[in-house]
Amino acid sequence: MIDFPYLSDVVRSTPSKIVMVVVDGLGGMPHPDYGKSELEFADIPILDTLGSTSSVGATIPVAPGITPGSGPGHMALFGYNPVKYLLGRGILEGMGIGADISQGDVAARGNFCVLDTEGSIVDRRAGRLDTETCKVLCSKLNEIQLDGVDFDVYPVMDYRFVLVLKGGNLSPNISETDPQVEGVLPLLSRPFNSEAQITANFIKEFVLKATELLGSADSSANGILLRGFSGLPTLPDFGNQYALNPAAIAAYPMYRGLAGLIGMDILESGQTFESEIDVLEDNFHQGYDFFFLHYKPADSAGEDGDFLAKVSQLENFNRDIQRVIDLNPDVLVICGDHSTPSFTASHSWHPVPFMINSQYSEGTSAVFTEKACRTGAIGTIQAEQLMFQVLAHASKLNKFGP
Amino acid sequence: MIDFPYLSDVVRSTPSKIVMVVVDGLGGMPHPDYGKSELEFADIPILDTLGSTSSVGATIPVAPGITPGSGPGHMALFGYNPVKYLLGRGILEGMGIGADISQGDVAARGNFCVLDTEGSIVDRRAGRLDTETCKVLCSKLNEIQLDGVDFDVYPVMDYRFVLVLKGGNLSPNISETDPQVEGVLPLLSRPFNSEAQITANFIKEFVLKATELLGSADSSANGILLRGFSGLPTLPDFGNQYALNPAAIAAYPMYRGLAGLIGMDILESGQTFESEIDVLEDNFHQGYDFFFLHYKPADSAGEDGDFLAKVSQLENFNRDIQRVIDLNPDVLVICGDHSTPSFTASHSWHPVPFMINSQYSEGTSAVFTEKACRTGAIGTIQAEQLMFQVLAHASKLNKFGP
Repeated sequence: MIDFPYLSDVVRSTPSKIVMVVVDGLGGMPHPDYGKSELEFADIPILDTLGSTSSVGATIPVAPGITPGSGPGHMALFGYNPVKYLLGRGILEGMGIGADISQGDVAARGNFCVLDTEGSIVDRRAGRLDTETCKVLCSKLNEIQLDGVDFDVYPVMDYRFVLVLKGGNLSPNISETDPQVEGVLPLLSRPFNSEAQITANFIKEFVLKATELLGSADSSANGILLRGFSGLPTLPDFGNQYALNPAAIAAYPMYRGLAGLIGMDILESGQTFESEIDVLEDNFHQGYDFFFLHYKPADSAGEDGDFLAKVSQLENFNRDIQRVIDLNPDVLVICGDHSTPSFTASHSWHPVPFMINSQYSEGTSAVFTEKACRTGAIGTIQAEQLMFQVLAHASKLNKFGP
Repeated sequence: MIDFPYLSDVVRSTPSKIVMVVVDGLGGMPHPDYGKSELEFADIPILDTLGSTSSVGATIPVAPGITPGSGPGHMALFGYNPVKYLLGRGILEGMGIGADISQGDVAARGNFCVLDTEGSIVDRRAGRLDTETCKVLCSKLNEIQLDGVDFDVYPVMDYRFVLVLKGGNLSPNISETDPQVEGVLPLLSRPFNSEAQITANFIKEFVLKATELLGSADSSANGILLRGFSGLPTLPDFGNQYALNPAAIAAYPMYRGLAGLIGMDILESGQTFESEIDVLEDNFHQGYDFFFLHYKPADSAGEDGDFLAKVSQLENFNRDIQRVIDLNPDVLVICGDHSTPSFTASHSWHPVPFMINSQYSEGTSAVFTEKACRTGAIGTIQAEQLMFQVLAHASKLNKFGP
């Protein structure tokens, strides 16, 4: 949480309803081939009109110049210091598939891979094997017995799985076995401190037995790679901190997982943003006063380096958002966890535009673009500061001090 | 270093080359006689064009309203908290002339001065005596014997010298002997704590013997004034922290000294910016991936309160920078350690314009001025945050977090 020790004194519960839509990878930068950013190029009249009556600004997710993953990007939007509350990859992946993870467990992200006869990595993703095969291989791994610890292996998608070591005396402070390059041997997991030795031993034994088992089974993968060992952090409860009754609607597992970690109710939806909005409509009058919706396609198109595809996904978003506007929430926030310019074809460090629409908004621009937002009514702020602005625009903050 | 504990996780070494040119005293403010700042008044088409395709912004060197010396100004640009890593004047001067200073030594900046028969200061700079005379007087001072401590006196330029007390049990926590006004007696150096008593005693003895020696020699100075007692701080290594192989090219000693303190290689140049660029050209393909160049004349003109002289020095810089542009560095940064408006005729607190030119830059203005930079693509940031932006524009930062 943002460093304001009187938070609990100033937050207040009111009937006003907030909808926060996180457009993954919302921001961009001008693409040399088009001379504009995707937001500038896109035909998004509904967003432009909404922006013209909104308080706009831009969020710095972590620090100027730092490119965040989606985890830190979202944590910051929810008001959590993304450095202090860094979530491990294993935890994020595990939460995303609804894995059973408790305090004290250690989770890791796994790849099935192909090793040559010397044990060197030939293919880190085992030909991107399909999810069905992944499920079969995970079942095999679940047959392994380790001396002194329980574990579960969960299939994720394609060649990816999650390993969760269960129970006491575990530590996530061990090194990864995935060297992240091919042509070399997998690494041996090493403890970063003496308390982690026992966990490193479990991993060594698990990898050994998994390699034997897969190798003897003539399967499409004969090895595993593990990374992102992490435990469940202790996180302040979002609803308690902000005096909100929050719900999350996200088609992608990781974002449901993250929202669950901070105590939001998870409302199940289908795989599309339209189906997320269906769920929002169904639940809008059901007692929640904060809804987090997640829109993924803009990020995916940006990561693919496809300028026009990202433009198109922003235009689709522009079309779909009308249904959210029609619900007439007291506060509608449109923001992003990070920028994903198609020019960099990756997440980037660029500040992310946002708008907060409420009766207290102050419009400063007729268009919703990076440039207009940077110098708008709110201007450029740390993402971690956004929630205070949102609560303020919802009349959910008392005066501080007499 | 900026407070980002995952710095070592996100920095990465790449072949891309960064040139950072620090224009000392770059920023200004509108002068009442001209209605414009020096940057606004100057004819600087090369800088304007470069700025139009650069990510521009303005740096706050230390804190809003605080006017920095060149030491803190540079430390911040290199990403070091200028308050935490404050360098003493003695150290800076000493490093600048290549003085032999080790951990535990105490350095001070000295002036030769003229005292009257009562011992009061008549001329704090002894008629700005010439460097040759200064060397002769320093040789004399080096003949002094102190009981229990070694020392070296180094000539600097004109009436200035550096005193370095060598060896154990010393402390820089003593007061200055230079009252910084004339017509009064030099001050007695006093310890700020009990551990510093021994050092204060050495200084008292040294000043006494120096005054006797100079007074008896019918020389152009008969006294000394000491200030800026300081020890060598422990500073993180610039190259290690940022995964860079850095080199510094600076005509003025202090800037070489500062760069050396943070571990940059010092490349020797002549006294002009042109000769600095000669050295840059000679070394550009020699394995360095970060070059710091220092341009002094704009600050000197500003300090003299000479608006048109500063304009002229900015125009000279505009002419010379073309040679740096022609080297086609992956990232070219033009920034300043502080503002030096000719109207204040001194360093000032005004945010300092900067530009970062790379393939990832986003141009927002056709001119390179204070106003255009403040609200540019990057906007106003702490100077300490600049290096992250520079590294981001060089693709030298990995994503933070999953």
